[in-house]
Amino acid sequence: MKTTKTVVIVGAVAGGASCAARLRRNEEFTRIVLLEKGPHASYANCGLPYRLGGVIPHDDNLLVAKPAVFTENFGIELHTLHEVRSIDPAAKTVSGIDLSNGKPFDLSYDALVLSPGAVPIRPPLPGVDLPGIFTVRSIPDIQAIRSWMEVHQAKEAVVVGGGFIGLETAENLRHLGLEVTVVEMLDQIMPPLDAEVVRPVEACLAENGIRLVLGDGVAGFENTPDNRLVVRTKSGSGFSADVVILSIGVRPDTTLAKAANLKIGARGGISVDAQMRTSDPAIYAVGDAVEVVSVLDDVPTLLALAGPANRQGRVAADAISGRSRTFRGVQGTSIVGVFDYAVGGTGWTEKALKRAGRTDYAVVWLHPGHHAGYYPGAETLHIKMLYRTADGLLLGAQVAGRADVARKLDVFAAFLQMNATVFDLEEAEMAYAPQFGGAKDAVNLAGMIAANHLRGEAQSISPGASIPPDAVVLDVRSPQEFAGGHWAGAINLPLPELRGRMGELTKSSELHVYCQSGKRAHDAARMLEQHGHRAVELSGGWDSWKS
Amino acid sequence: MKTTKTVVIVGAVAGGASCAARLRRNEEFTRIVLLEKGPHASYANCGLPYRLGGVIPHDDNLLVAKPAVFTENFGIELHTLHEVRSIDPAAKTVSGIDLSNGKPFDLSYDALVLSPGAVPIRPPLPGVDLPGIFTVRSIPDIQAIRSWMEVHQAKEAVVVGGGFIGLETAENLRHLGLEVTVVEMLDQIMPPLDAEVVRPVEACLAENGIRLVLGDGVAGFENTPDNRLVVRTKSGSGFSADVVILSIGVRPDTTLAKAANLKIGARGGISVDAQMRTSDPAIYAVGDAVEVVSVLDDVPTLLALAGPANRQGRVAADAISGRSRTFRGVQGTSIVGVFDYAVGGTGWTEKALKRAGRTDYAVVWLHPGHHAGYYPGAETLHIKMLYRTADGLLLGAQVAGRADVARKLDVFAAFLQMNATVFDLEEAEMAYAPQFGGAKDAVNLAGMIAANHLRGEAQSISPGASIPPDAVVLDVRSPQEFAGGHWAGAINLPLPELRGRMGELTKSSELHVYCQSGKRAHDAARMLEQHGHRAVELSGGWDSWKS
Repeated sequence: MKTTKTVVIVGAVAGGASCAARLRRNEEFTRIVLLEKGPHASYANCGLPYRLGGVIPHDDNLLVAKPAVFTENFGIELHTLHEVRSIDPAAKTVSGIDLSNGKPFDLSYDALVLSPGAVPIRPPLPGVDLPGIFTVRSIPDIQAIRSWMEVHQAKEAVVVGGGFIGLETAENLRHLGLEVTVVEMLDQIMPPLDAEVVRPVEACLAENGIRLVLGDGVAGFENTPDNRLVVRTKSGSGFSADVVILSIGVRPDTTLAKAANLKIGARGGISVDAQMRTSDPAIYAVGDAVEVVSVLDDVPTLLALAGPANRQGRVAADAISGRSRTFRGVQGTSIVGVFDYAVGGTGWTEKALKRAGRTDYAVVWLHPGHHAGYYPGAETLHIKMLYRTADGLLLGAQVAGRADVARKLDVFAAFLQMNATVFDLEEAEMAYAPQFGGAKDAVNLAGMIAANHLRGEAQSISPGASIPPDAVVLDVRSPQEFAGGHWAGAINLPLPELRGRMGELTKSSELHVYCQSGKRAHDAARMLEQHGHRAVELSGGWDSWKS
Repeated sequence: MKTTKTVVIVGAVAGGASCAARLRRNEEFTRIVLLEKGPHASYANCGLPYRLGGVIPHDDNLLVAKPAVFTENFGIELHTLHEVRSIDPAAKTVSGIDLSNGKPFDLSYDALVLSPGAVPIRPPLPGVDLPGIFTVRSIPDIQAIRSWMEVHQAKEAVVVGGGFIGLETAENLRHLGLEVTVVEMLDQIMPPLDAEVVRPVEACLAENGIRLVLGDGVAGFENTPDNRLVVRTKSGSGFSADVVILSIGVRPDTTLAKAANLKIGARGGISVDAQMRTSDPAIYAVGDAVEVVSVLDDVPTLLALAGPANRQGRVAADAISGRSRTFRGVQGTSIVGVFDYAVGGTGWTEKALKRAGRTDYAVVWLHPGHHAGYYPGAETLHIKMLYRTADGLLLGAQVAGRADVARKLDVFAAFLQMNATVFDLEEAEMAYAPQFGGAKDAVNLAGMIAANHLRGEAQSISPGASIPPDAVVLDVRSPQEFAGGHWAGAINLPLPELRGRMGELTKSSELHVYCQSGKRAHDAARMLEQHGHRAVELSGGWDSWKS
């Protein structure tokens, strides 16, 4: 073999595995050594909660590429249970321990790729190390939880943290028949998303028997005399549990990088350039451990997701092979499914815009069916879209619902990537057949509503904006809808009667108009404006404003 | 009322209805008269096959906007059963007949909008007017078919034409328990799509008990002595039927437009500018009756779909209101669902490129799962993507499969609209969770494969290209897969053994390499190339090439 160089890759999941395979396709004659400290290479981290619940029946199912693919198909030297403990950047060597036999090993490299991933956060709370408190990050974690639950005949679980892993784990524990409580410090699940967007998902969790404790942090953990656990919260509550899952989040695993004096970024991840090169030109880093640039604001950020990790692995391999490709950065597309519901986002959220001090945006809320209403089975999509008021540039979108959430997110993600405006969305030509969409697709509707605003054909405010206490609020729904719940103090004047009864309304103050989801209010507002009234639409209607 | 002008709209479905609603929002004081010659306004044409099958339980379900919405909410004068028979463009008047009482009517207009739709083609074949032969275009059509089938206790049906309506109707007749034969003149269903793309759908139809007769045109229709029908084909076959559905296609209804001397385009539709204005500046036309510019080649085309019709209605309304918006044109996104399968496309097909004499494109075939393989229930997506070889510009995509077909089509449609390249697809950040996609999404994979080609990292040919009879064809699948069917004369050398047994292969001729779906062949080709062989991949592998 005309081996010309050696590349050592530390970490064989997502980014590392992807890098190794790409590198072999680039370079047949390079020695590639892929080291993984855990017992499994290339396992599907994202599938762990479903393995816990048994939806995924065997541990082996989680192995995205079996070891033989690396060794036989790719001629890669794969070593699991090999933990790298130190790097000597000057000598270009790594040293570590073979955990299967305790023996040390050393390796020289021409290029080194770090893909150590992230570690679950274990807050230093009283009792956090009690038996029965677990995190979900690896196949052995799942094996330990399953075995603990079996031995202790677990009936009650507390999940700490209401993010992706927390919710997926909660659902799976519920499927296993446990009573499940989710404790989340913030007043919403899925902290990266805007609170209103996740409200229907919170309702879905409650309907499925999961107790949600929001806005209450964990103070500590205790053992009970009968050998169970109690999770104490800051508000003074206590929740008993046979098993506790900590899913508060993850932090980049930078132990090795720090020991090798590689540059660490402001967010605590390994700093890399657009080719995934660290501050040492022979060392690359990819995946959950690195800081990547957000395409939204060009600021380095942390995003522990498998998709970007895979693409980063490919970019690092190409860089090692002397190719000029760069990593595009991330826009933060994500989704989570719980029971029959899904929620996710792409691009900016409103809370991120506010945090960045931006006020140059507007919000569209809508609640269309996922397909034509005349075909049975249409499910409501809840869509919050953000755009730049100066020019209609799409800034972000969040979607919740029972069907086609991923589809809408993907379309928004594609448009966002291509710097589309709401005028592009208005004109989008989406796939329509009765069971697959609408003649006006939800994406068209979002674009049309925003474009109407930008063309000055409508004025609207979105939930969170304040309605002056003395404002005239006009509900143009039917008396039946009105009776089912309405804005306190609202006047009910159904749209079909509005033209004839407009004289009943004042012209001296602004009318705040709403209906159920926004459509009739727009019709009413257009009518009122042309009759000399001033009208402001409540975006998304009662569906958006009731909470 | 300070009515300032009168707008008459002829045709109250899709384009016409949409135009009327938009116009009222633009102009509160304009008199809007909406005339429909049929008994129903704003009905969901696209739902008719499902109304036939009873999936949609009531005729009323098909009314997208009930008449009261037009009259009460919008103050539009809606008249059904009002057929306009002539236009006097000089006098700006229309005349017609109230079909409910036979009385004539006349109306003056300041602006006129024609939305007459399209009429089903009834070829002048012997017997085409026999009772029991129907088309599917309106609610009365469906009522007539249902009543005929009941009276005649129909057990056998022949559907002529394998396009959207034909297939949807065939499926619905099958659900009603009939024996169904589909006769299609071309050698494939869904004539606008490439033949290989629809093969799995043809298989799905057969599995569901529908007899497909491809490549055989209808010669005529006969009555039998026992008062049934026989459909005779050009090849000499005869298919008995209690009911026959003609779904050969539609042609623009230009009767009125021609009578008014409006310009008709080369494709037989009403000519309009980008604001949907006809050759008479006071007359607009929208929907299935008009020719619209294709954004693909800037050539006027016919596209009888509800989505574009709706958007055209809005553009015409804005033009009447003196606004400058224009219609973007069409890219031809379409989808059809049959049983548990769906197939569709957006942008160019290969047959359209060939018809246009273009050779500046390449094809990518892939067959990924619709979500992560480690999560149960992944369905195979069959994707054919076309891109421009000069720069990677996305030209079109076609997708078939049991899940997420609409999702992938929408994403390709969005990227195509924004002039994305395959390099953009490679970097796309799609929504991924185990049940909703893959860490490398199908769209990423399509982009990666194409980008590999463009960067010179792979050479491939796609089904339809010829393999020289003396070429060495290498199958790198397992012996078991090989035994299940393979290219005649192919050598089987499984990828895991390839590195060790490469000496068995010639370097003097090009190796044509394939696996099941394309991935292993790419790995093999990269390896072979670097060992001094010349390798060409068969795009999409055996999944694409077996037919």
